[in-house]
Amino acid sequence: MLIGPGDDAAVVRVSDGRVVVSTDLLVEGQHFRRDWSTAYDVGRKAAAQNLADILAMGAVPTALVVGLAAPADLEVGWVDGLTDGLRDECARLRVSVVGGDLSAADVLVVAVTALGDLRGRTAVTRAGAKPGDVVVVAGRLGFAAAGLALLSAGRSDHPLADAHRVPDVAYDAALRLAEAGATAMVDVSDGLVADLGHIAIASGVRIELASDDLPLPPELVEAALALGVDPRSWVAGGGEDHAFAATMRSDAALRAVTLLADLDAPVPFAQVGRVVTGDPGVVFVDETPAGPSGHQHFA
Amino acid sequence: MLIGPGDDAAVVRVSDGRVVVSTDLLVEGQHFRRDWSTAYDVGRKAAAQNLADILAMGAVPTALVVGLAAPADLEVGWVDGLTDGLRDECARLRVSVVGGDLSAADVLVVAVTALGDLRGRTAVTRAGAKPGDVVVVAGRLGFAAAGLALLSAGRSDHPLADAHRVPDVAYDAALRLAEAGATAMVDVSDGLVADLGHIAIASGVRIELASDDLPLPPELVEAALALGVDPRSWVAGGGEDHAFAATMRSDAALRAVTLLADLDAPVPFAQVGRVVTGDPGVVFVDETPAGPSGHQHFA
Repeated sequence: MLIGPGDDAAVVRVSDGRVVVSTDLLVEGQHFRRDWSTAYDVGRKAAAQNLADILAMGAVPTALVVGLAAPADLEVGWVDGLTDGLRDECARLRVSVVGGDLSAADVLVVAVTALGDLRGRTAVTRAGAKPGDVVVVAGRLGFAAAGLALLSAGRSDHPLADAHRVPDVAYDAALRLAEAGATAMVDVSDGLVADLGHIAIASGVRIELASDDLPLPPELVEAALALGVDPRSWVAGGGEDHAFAATMRSDAALRAVTLLADLDAPVPFAQVGRVVTGDPGVVFVDETPAGPSGHQHFA
Repeated sequence: MLIGPGDDAAVVRVSDGRVVVSTDLLVEGQHFRRDWSTAYDVGRKAAAQNLADILAMGAVPTALVVGLAAPADLEVGWVDGLTDGLRDECARLRVSVVGGDLSAADVLVVAVTALGDLRGRTAVTRAGAKPGDVVVVAGRLGFAAAGLALLSAGRSDHPLADAHRVPDVAYDAALRLAEAGATAMVDVSDGLVADLGHIAIASGVRIELASDDLPLPPELVEAALALGVDPRSWVAGGGEDHAFAATMRSDAALRAVTLLADLDAPVPFAQVGRVVTGDPGVVFVDETPAGPSGHQHFA
């Protein structure tokens, strides 16, 4: 940053004549519960979902500003924990929190705005998907939904519960998908079907998914068996993991595999469907997974 | 804007390698009451206070993103009114709302982030005030505080009550002060004494004010007489009018007068004090106005 917190506004460097901006709210009782998540968790989650929005445009996140509305009786240390969580998640991408605002309120609300830099590249919007493209996903799907289901069932000590508290976002994957030639991209915040629906509408295309192609990691299957639910409903409908879903030509998808293999940590990658002409929307060509088609908040 | 609402993020043009960013919350019960202000008023106020922050850096506002947390039982049309208010206040400066987020919550919170463009100029921070500078104010002081006092006294039909609902910000004045040679600048959101205190601390200087030099428009005096209070406490301590307070050399202040005279609408302008060496802080060289030294929210 050029000018940081403590003035009327901050000044952030950008490398070309454009800045990318996105904003999100986290509301207690809607997006987090203080008995399920620590302040540190909430800080990391708030940062993660905004950083993912910037990356889903094919841009590099550069700075965050944060507004916090908090009850007067908020326990001591909660704001410190939130701040630490925001800072640590941002540090993974060398991003700084450059400004903020604090207000009293009867409910806890964390309002985060993230800025990003395209570094001369073309933005990857939702509107570029073309018939003939394949649909790929990089990152985890269904883990946050599984975590929420486990927490709701009183299994707060289950390892997957953490996936609701703090998403494990494959940040590095987004720019690789863009570089490979993504024609459209979103981060999965509302659920795979819902977010691909945004691409379908914006691009005026039909997206065909195969539920047999949805990734089903063993830990999701195990947790689903324990709870007696279909894990594919988490994978198809669960949000808040912030995987990156993109459309691209099939040769670009092969290039994406190569680029993702170069990353330090392995990233789950799957081809889950294809783009066709037809009424804009998302359909399954085989059995549609049970459950809601989009992510439902828990309040 | 280059890419507007409806994607993961928006893309906004900037003219040099920097972007200015500021964020603010408006919380029901803290910053507005729905029985005192319309949704349209709240929208205009939310935009105004963020646009003023950008201008106080000597930058041109370019875009807004807005997060809204709202109760499920919010009356129909409130969100439309808010949106109209945001849009109309932004339109005064040809600024667009480029993105947003909406969430349920038990309380109404409007979270606005504004972006701005320095157009090659140096940012005017709070840290540049120098001994020998004079302190000037462009815009209204004490009007929002008078409006709040009148509303609290049940005088919601008084013309000045509108000054609490929607500030009348002298947007055009800020860039003229910067151009004239402001060494430091703030918009008065917390109160003149409190906000000049921010300059004093950041610049490591002492600011001497003369209460006899505080502007006392007749409508403030009249309202104060009716309520039995000292109008100078509104002028010295009242926030939310978003006047621009700046320090500059005395020859620059003369230049500022000339530049402000060229504006289409006349802007109140006053020289209210001077910058000296000494312990950082703000003092009155004559009688200190009664009342709080900084703006108090009403909850």
